[in-house]
Amino acid sequence: MTVSENHGNASICLGCWDQMHVPIPIRGPLALPFRAFGITRSKMNPNICTICERAFRYVKQKNHVTANATILFADIRGFTFLSERMDPVRLGQVVSTFHDRCAEAIWAHDGIVNKQMGDGLMAIFNFPIRIDAHASAAIMAAQDIQRQCSAALQNLRSDLGDLPDHVLGVGVGIHTGDVEIGEFSSFRSDFTAIGGAVNLAARLESQAAIGEILISPATAARAPDLMTDSETRSLQLKGIEQPVDAAVLTDR
Amino acid sequence: MTVSENHGNASICLGCWDQMHVPIPIRGPLALPFRAFGITRSKMNPNICTICERAFRYVKQKNHVTANATILFADIRGFTFLSERMDPVRLGQVVSTFHDRCAEAIWAHDGIVNKQMGDGLMAIFNFPIRIDAHASAAIMAAQDIQRQCSAALQNLRSDLGDLPDHVLGVGVGIHTGDVEIGEFSSFRSDFTAIGGAVNLAARLESQAAIGEILISPATAARAPDLMTDSETRSLQLKGIEQPVDAAVLTDR
Repeated sequence: MTVSENHGNASICLGCWDQMHVPIPIRGPLALPFRAFGITRSKMNPNICTICERAFRYVKQKNHVTANATILFADIRGFTFLSERMDPVRLGQVVSTFHDRCAEAIWAHDGIVNKQMGDGLMAIFNFPIRIDAHASAAIMAAQDIQRQCSAALQNLRSDLGDLPDHVLGVGVGIHTGDVEIGEFSSFRSDFTAIGGAVNLAARLESQAAIGEILISPATAARAPDLMTDSETRSLQLKGIEQPVDAAVLTDR
Repeated sequence: MTVSENHGNASICLGCWDQMHVPIPIRGPLALPFRAFGITRSKMNPNICTICERAFRYVKQKNHVTANATILFADIRGFTFLSERMDPVRLGQVVSTFHDRCAEAIWAHDGIVNKQMGDGLMAIFNFPIRIDAHASAAIMAAQDIQRQCSAALQNLRSDLGDLPDHVLGVGVGIHTGDVEIGEFSSFRSDFTAIGGAVNLAARLESQAAIGEILISPATAARAPDLMTDSETRSLQLKGIEQPVDAAVLTDR
């Protein structure tokens, strides 16, 4: 990221700048004519624009590209349990709280919320906004997610009475590697990332207990400063032959 | 669905008609002025428009509503295995083939592709396009998915040499029930469905082997005509206390 160190409110799209060196105004009076053509701030990250979000083939001149990135998955633990017992309005509040808190944390570290699916989400760090230390950025975002969600969900928890320990908290999984980024269906225009590295991050997240961040060895090796309080846990993950020695961070 | 029985190409948005009785042109010359304001055909289903897709609060005058719907999940079995062994370009082809074939099948039965996430997707039947027999519509879409994907993936399979039996096919899970439909984060504008019924459909899908469609008792009871060749399988699903007696359809 070369244009702005102010992660709060960039004046031009950081994605278009990093990927094409084209300055697309997204805030201020210069952004108005663009808005008239439907070019606005992206829902994935308000510092990128809808060109990055929906015109991948135009931005990269290819259907997909290989990129080194850090992938973060987060979801609400025990959501199936919760969804069978909670009234729908309250359940909607839990999901909204989760998504909003996660997005704030991810955006603060220049990641994008690429996919939301029910009580889960997938974030990408290092595309389209370039981040040299993308592994560290993702880990710090995960720590913010755990802190912010735990505070917000704690309030809900006390309203709900007795809940088992495995309910109403967040689990996170992170992995760094080469992924394929692009459009993978002829009818959707928003890009995503696929590949073994994406699946490993998802598998790690599925093993994370409430409050835990499970970090792959590849990610941990790139962020030794953040690993001082971590434990190591050997995990057998579905579809992956060798056990994975994940680093576990817990916000306690 | 009262306006058109031609599921191929509706002239007005079937969602806006069914939800608000407002005719929004989406094809033909009348659609042109709408297109100038960014109102085009939705990526979720080309017979609905971007008002249905992105303006849920405007359409329903609420943040979310409870609706009876049938939820379908489908994904590529053994994708983690595959993604660790296949080159990224080929992997992209597999995912694109899957998403395109699934979408055709879902649209042919008036469902919408609500979410795509890597090698998986979630479809909703009975919102925003109303379908009286939404359970049957989803089951028939699932049968089309299995038929079309198995033919398309078989071609890829023969190029790839020896693969284990659990790799390169599709699993589907279906459940019918009351779900909450709406926008569940303050920064995304596309609607989705959440709730226990959504999670049960996802859990069923996770248990489906290649070629299988796992159907909940609630869905099966609404479509007895389609169940004549089904077997029953008792499943213990994560987060759900009672075992579920799923009906299993296999395309053989």
